[in-house]
Amino acid sequence: MRASFARQRLMQTLGAELSSIRDGVVEIELPYREDLTQQHGYLHAAAVSAIVDSACGYAAMTRMPPEAEVLSVEFKVNLLAPALGERFVAVGRVIRSGRTLTVCSGEAHGLKDGERKLICVMQATMIASRT
Amino acid sequence: MRASFARQRLMQTLGAELSSIRDGVVEIELPYREDLTQQHGYLHAAAVSAIVDSACGYAAMTRMPPEAEVLSVEFKVNLLAPALGERFVAVGRVIRSGRTLTVCSGEAHGLKDGERKLICVMQATMIASRT
Amino acid sequence: MRASFARQRLMQTLGAELSSIRDGVVEIELPYREDLTQQHGYLHAAAVSAIVDSACGYAAMTRMPPEAEVLSVEFKVNLLAPALGERFVAVGRVIRSGRTLTVCSGEAHGLKDGERKLICVMQATMIASRT
Amino acid sequence: MRASFARQRLMQTLGAELSSIRDGVVEIELPYREDLTQQHGYLHAAAVSAIVDSACGYAAMTRMPPEAEVLSVEFKVNLLAPALGERFVAVGRVIRSGRTLTVCSGEAHGLKDGERKLICVMQATMIASRT
Repeated sequence: MRASFARQRLMQTLGAELSSIRDGVVEIELPYREDLTQQHGYLHAAAVSAIVDSACGYAAMTRMPPEAEVLSVEFKVNLLAPALGERFVAVGRVIRSGRTLTVCSGEAHGLKDGERKLICVMQATMIASRT
Repeated sequence: MRASFARQRLMQTLGAELSSIRDGVVEIELPYREDLTQQHGYLHAAAVSAIVDSACGYAAMTRMPPEAEVLSVEFKVNLLAPALGERFVAVGRVIRSGRTLTVCSGEAHGLKDGERKLICVMQATMIASRT
Repeated sequence: MRASFARQRLMQTLGAELSSIRDGVVEIELPYREDLTQQHGYLHAAAVSAIVDSACGYAAMTRMPPEAEVLSVEFKVNLLAPALGERFVAVGRVIRSGRTLTVCSGEAHGLKDGERKLICVMQATMIASRT
Repeated sequence: MRASFARQRLMQTLGAELSSIRDGVVEIELPYREDLTQQHGYLHAAAVSAIVDSACGYAAMTRMPPEAEVLSVEFKVNLLAPALGERFVAVGRVIRSGRTLTVCSGEAHGLKDGERKLICVMQATMIASRT
């Protein structure tokens, strides 16, 4: 899984790190960087969505056979608050894994001055792709 | 609108350009770059979603009062095909604009060897925020 | 397809009719009935969503092998305006059909005094289920 | 809230009951009925979505001023398993309530022979409407 993550060039470009892998639950962290912001100086929603979608994908992968690759079929995000923080933590969790499709829920928090604030929630469908 | 886009540092980081602005319809283009890819060498779904979400946001902005800023409330993407291409074009269209909320539909195409292939569709809600 | 629709008891309970079937495009109609309303007397969003989701499902079925059944994996609706009308028409259209999954877009209009008003849009994923 | 629910004629037509109201969490129950089924005899996804969307709406209402009415802006459901059961319980929970918009998550379980099975999850946006 770490090898797959390392091959995701966009994750490196954003500076995201796979910080925790457990059965059905994966966390990805992203430090704030000015070149990832939107017009008000907050982290761009696209950068937030990127790490939540990835966390959901890798969470799904923990339930798939080793040779399977995971692809996002679709995802839906609700943006709850401005992405304000020094670091951002995305968590993806498997809700139900099937033979073909796995449904996940994700969320992201902004960490600032020791406080943790929920900034977005996601509902996503992943598919196992045999390569 | 171009000024707002220019302040979106992530759009510059990705290399995205606001290529067309009409009433209710906005296009954003993104050339392929290796550092924006996923594990198979295709453009990462997050980069594709980023430009479609932005195109929807700016499409919504064409229907808002000049002083309003636009924020994404939520969006939902279906990823239809691998993001393969030399360039990618995202189009955002207003479906219905209200006083507070504007609903948009978006899509992205990959352009390769003169062919254009639909790679994702989006349904999004935008809100006018008075700053 | 008409046989499958006829076995959907809820569609009968609501009074919905399969009004048009073409390759990749299906329409379902529902006359207004007071016992299908929400608290303001408009057609309930759930009744509207029901016919749009069904129209998407049957649109997907037009692209599947004859023995396949179709199931909704997920759908997302944006409710654009109160469901006001004497009749409601839902249209489901295939955006992309694959071997396993088919992505559809749907919409519903309210018809009142000869006018047609868009009341909701949907983006949905269908799966072919071999029974 | 019970008065508002009682005016939702569709909820009566389906046979749904508002079974629990707490701050930010509302439950709605629906007994199985053959006239609410899809082609395989399971409860129709539209009936399931109807009670989850309603549970989310009333959960949002617990955080709104007394004179406000609640309307669904959009919702997204993932259908996880066939809706099999003698009764169905939908739960709606507020994730974040704002002045204008409230984001909720919902789920539905089928109850059969004393077992409880998760059949769908929802992510929804509600708006407070002053009437």
